[in-house]
Parts: sequence; structure tokens; C-alpha cells
Amino acid sequence: MQIADLDTPVAVVDLDRLEANIARFQTYLDRHGIANRPHIKTHKIPQIAHMQLAAGAVGITCQKLGEAEVMANAGIADIFIPYNIVGGAKLERLVALARRASISVTADSEYVVRGLSGAMAAAGLELPVLVECDTGLGRCGAQTPSEAAELALLIARAPGLRFGGLMTYPTTDATGPFMREAARQIAAHGLAVDRVSGGGTPQMWQAHRCPEVTEHRAGMYIYGDRYTLKAGAISLERCSLTVLTTVVSRPTADRAVIDGGSKTLSSDLLGLEGYGMCMEYPEARLYSLSEEHGQFDLSRCERRPSVGDRVTIIPNHCCVVSNLFNEIVGVRAGEVEVVWPVAARGALR
Amino acid sequence: MQIADLDTPVAVVDLDRLEANIARFQTYLDRHGIANRPHIKTHKIPQIAHMQLAAGAVGITCQKLGEAEVMANAGIADIFIPYNIVGGAKLERLVALARRASISVTADSEYVVRGLSGAMAAAGLELPVLVECDTGLGRCGAQTPSEAAELALLIARAPGLRFGGLMTYPTTDATGPFMREAARQIAAHGLAVDRVSGGGTPQMWQAHRCPEVTEHRAGMYIYGDRYTLKAGAISLERCSLTVLTTVVSRPTADRAVIDGGSKTLSSDLLGLEGYGMCMEYPEARLYSLSEEHGQFDLSRCERRPSVGDRVTIIPNHCCVVSNLFNEIVGVRAGEVEVVWPVAARGALR
Repeated sequence: MQIADLDTPVAVVDLDRLEANIARFQTYLDRHGIANRPHIKTHKIPQIAHMQLAAGAVGITCQKLGEAEVMANAGIADIFIPYNIVGGAKLERLVALARRASISVTADSEYVVRGLSGAMAAAGLELPVLVECDTGLGRCGAQTPSEAAELALLIARAPGLRFGGLMTYPTTDATGPFMREAARQIAAHGLAVDRVSGGGTPQMWQAHRCPEVTEHRAGMYIYGDRYTLKAGAISLERCSLTVLTTVVSRPTADRAVIDGGSKTLSSDLLGLEGYGMCMEYPEARLYSLSEEHGQFDLSRCERRPSVGDRVTIIPNHCCVVSNLFNEIVGVRAGEVEVVWPVAARGALR
Repeated sequence: MQIADLDTPVAVVDLDRLEANIARFQTYLDRHGIANRPHIKTHKIPQIAHMQLAAGAVGITCQKLGEAEVMANAGIADIFIPYNIVGGAKLERLVALARRASISVTADSEYVVRGLSGAMAAAGLELPVLVECDTGLGRCGAQTPSEAAELALLIARAPGLRFGGLMTYPTTDATGPFMREAARQIAAHGLAVDRVSGGGTPQMWQAHRCPEVTEHRAGMYIYGDRYTLKAGAISLERCSLTVLTTVVSRPTADRAVIDGGSKTLSSDLLGLEGYGMCMEYPEARLYSLSEEHGQFDLSRCERRPSVGDRVTIIPNHCCVVSNLFNEIVGVRAGEVEVVWPVAARGALR
């Protein structure tokens, strides 16, 4: 089956590019002695996770427990969940998961540490817990190195837990100084910081500039998207994920409407102008999405598509797009090679 | 099982409110002699579609062929797909669907009409096709009444098709004049306009002001959301869909982070400020979403939630939220009564 035989909208991955992206970033991290722990939230597909591991990743990262369960079911042995696991139902699932895979998690408060400790001690397990540190994003995480050190000590003393190191997202210029100072204070308590986990795709090629970081979590590097393109982390000819759509209406000379909208491409703007880039008509501006329609302004285009024409979209944000599709089609040289179910799609808990 | 026993994030529907919303709008349309053809893109759940039909809806509306297939599989007999069906694969599926249910569709170009005609004539079927008219949205649709009349004539003469009337989205002040003039021109060709399909939830209580419209398609009226609230089409105590989340981090005095982000609430802003409203802390501002985190600014709150507390979110846009969940939990008086799979979720083609 050829790409041209696929009905639209469809999410297509160029397998040559995917494999090259996986290999290229692994080589970079290997060269700098940084462990690769790719974030599977981008693809949610066990087969791609196995490709990343085969290339040299030390394990994977999942954002939610449900994603980790899907990946463990697929035989993946080492899973990091950099998320505060809160509540009895999730702690019970975490215990079950920790019995069958090598799991590590994070915490940024005493509440979370106490919950993890209670569950793990009762189960007779020892869970590595890293302290999440806010080194610039302003989302979760200890706000100061002293706060991180206090949490490290709390974890080290908590039954059922082991202090597993420090974690941040994303790695920024402030990460090094924060981590150095936190490690200094933690060492004063007689604890070692063996693992410092940094992350992010936009700055992925600068990971080596922060020598404190021992492992890197990137997600989007396998696919690329307009956001990663704008950040300069990937080039257009390396972007592997596209959404193939069909022009279903040309109501005016300047407007084309495609059969993909916010339920296909998502409304994520991430500071970009427009909702995606059209490969065949790069001057066309995808200025508006409704749920199942995407509207292009063609006023800057010399050539213009007709109803029935297919157009290929590079989305703004690949992670949310793969979460909207039930399956991703893998192609090589225009030929369909595989259809992967997005197995961890919708694993919100 | 009680609401408090549900793990988060979870999409919860209050069944008393859902039933009341279905009944209230049906009563309004009945009073004005307007047929109700609810849009199931909002819920994508056959059981809710059956509730709408039992209340008096003449049929349902689906935005995609795949949604219509799911609904036909659930025994729903009358389905309108107000969308340009383009391409051989979809036309083949449309033929199969038209053999087992009463289907109508729309077209806004000769290309679409020719495609439908070829497929239906070859199958020996007669498909009602409505002309989509752009009466203000600026998306798809004939741009002028004359263009609509020309398409009506084209449909009427096309083998395998029957002219089924006129359709627009949403019903606006310009809808009446457009439809009157189109009907006048169409009548001059000896054709009758038996069905004029209007739609939209924000202006749903004004549907009767456009007497040309014979049926109304609303979707969000069953759930409500911040967008519908702002439009004045629903009141807060009637909103039936909420997303229950848990506070997983309180990194600073002014910040709370919940376990729902853009993969739970979507990034849809629809002109609103913030990504959702918190029922327990209405002064809290949901200012930022990442994929699995939502960030609240608590600076205006006197009381503030702690890690582990549950908070209830009214989303900006209910349709895209139900598309992100695999199932919706129906509750009555705090007790879980039913869990509905979102059966047509991800039916993008």
C-alpha cells in the first residue's frame, strides 16, 4: 500500500527519518557520556520505545502511571515517572508496577513523599525517588537548593524509599548552579547524588553544557514539529511526523478548507503563528481550526490547491497530535510498512 | 461507588443535569415547531444519542463518517453528516452506510456533488444532499444565494442524488435573508426547499427568530462549558460535564498544579481567559497547561487548596474534552451510575 492509498486525515511517520533521529541523538548523548532516557509521551507506542532502547537508551520516561503500565506490559524493564504520584488508587497501582519493573519516580513535597513511603514500606519494596527541582520553568518542583536538600533527606529517611537523585525540566542555564548547590547541601547530610535527570527537546543539543546532568529526557526529537523547528533543534528534512489531509472545500479564491481541525492537529500554538505548516503550499497560512475543519488563507500562494487535493501538514506540537490518533502509519519511501496502535493514548491516570 | 472514589483526572457527567438539558432544549424546539437534530460530536456516546432521540429528536448529526458508522452500529436510523465527503475510500463507506441507515449529507462544490453522484448512482441509491451555505462563519459553504441555487440544481439533476435542502452553521442574523433568497431562486427552477438546517449552541435559544430554519443542530447544550456559559446559553448550575482533578503540587504560596493539562482539558481558548474554571476556588486562575499539568494562580484566593485535594474544573470547550477521554462517568446525587465508553472518540475519518 502506498501513502496515496491512505484515507485522510492520517498521521504518517517516515521510518527512515524516525530511525535516523533516534540514532543521531543517541550518538550525541553517548559522545558526551549522558544517559538517554527518552520520553514516550511523544509517541505512546511500545514499538518505538523498543527502538529507542535498542539504540542505546538506558530506560524510558513516562509522564503518567497509565503510560508506564502500557510500556511495562510491552516488556520494558526500566521506567521513570517524573510526576507526583498522589492518592490511594495510584499508589496501589504503583506498587503493582514496581513489583514487575524497575520504576523510579519524583516528589516535590512532604505530602507526596509520605504517600509513596507508606505504600512502598507496606509492600516491602524500596522505590528510588528523585527530588523534582524547579530550575526555571515555574511549574512543579523544589524552589531552592535547600528545599531540594531537605526533601532528599526526608526521602532517604522514609521507610520504603531510597533517595534517587535530582530531576528538572527543562534543563536551563540555571540548572547547573541549582544542582551543584543542592548536591553540596545533600552531601553535607552524607548522601550522594548519583543521578541528575534533565530534559527537553528544544535545547537537546546543549545537554552537554550542563555537566551536572547525568541523563537526558527528550521526547519530540524522534518526530520533530514546527515548535522544534523554530527552536532550531531539527531541520525540516528530518521531521518524521506529518498529518496527511484532503482539501474538502474551496469556498473562495483565497480559502481552502481541509479535513483536519483541532481534533486532528490540536489547538496548541506554543507561541507560533498558525496551527501547522503545509509542505506543498508553504505560503498558505493555517489561520483557524474548528474541530474537524482547518482553514487555509491562500492569498500569498501563486499555485493553489483544488478540492480533492491532498496536503501534508507539519503540526505545531507532535506530542498532542499523536495523542489524538488511534494509530500511526509508518512508511518507507512512500510505501506503508507498519500501522502502530497508539497503545498508551488516553492513559490520563 | 461515590464520586470521591474515582481516580483523577476523570470526566464526570451529572445525569440529572444531562437529562434536564436534553429535555429543556427539546421542549423549546417543540414549542417553536423546529426539528431537533442534535450534534453528537460533543459526546460521541451512542447511549446519549439514544436519550436525545427518546426525548424527541428527529435524528442525529455527525461531523465525520466514522462517527456516523459508530452511531449506525448502535441502531440509530437517521443520520445527517453536514460535511463534504471526498475521495473513493469514504464514498465506498458512505454507500455501505446509506444501505443500512437513512443518511443525508451536504456539498458546497461541483466536485463534491460529482463524487457523491458517481458513487450513489453506481450503487443504485438516492442520497439526499443539502447545499451548505456560508451565512457568516466564513468556513465552508456557498458564498451567495445564487451559488447555492446553482448547486441545488446540479444536485437535483445528478444521478443517484436528491436535492435535500439547505444547511448552514451557525444560524446567524444573516441566515434568514440568505435562505429566503436562495429558496426563491431555487423555486424558480421548480425545486422545493423542504429542509433548512441551522445550528449552534451559543445562539440556540434564538433559533426561533429565523423562521426559515426547519431543524436545529446543537451539540454542547447537553453538557455546557465556559464558552456556552459566557454566551449566556446555559447557567452554571446546569453545566453537567466537569473534569475532576487532584492537586499534585503546591510549589509556592500562589501556585497549585493539578494532574490535568492539555491532554485532559485541551488548549482550546475560544476567546476566553484561562483554560478552565475551578468550582471550589473560583478566584483561582488556570493560566497555563502543559500536557499533563495544569497551573493555577492562587494569588486572588483567600482559601487555598493543599496537595491531595480534589478540584472540579468546568472546561472551556466540552466537545474537545470528551474527545480526550476514553470513557465518561455518569453520576447521580454523587453516586456513580454508569461508565460510558466514548465510542466514537478518534473517529477522524
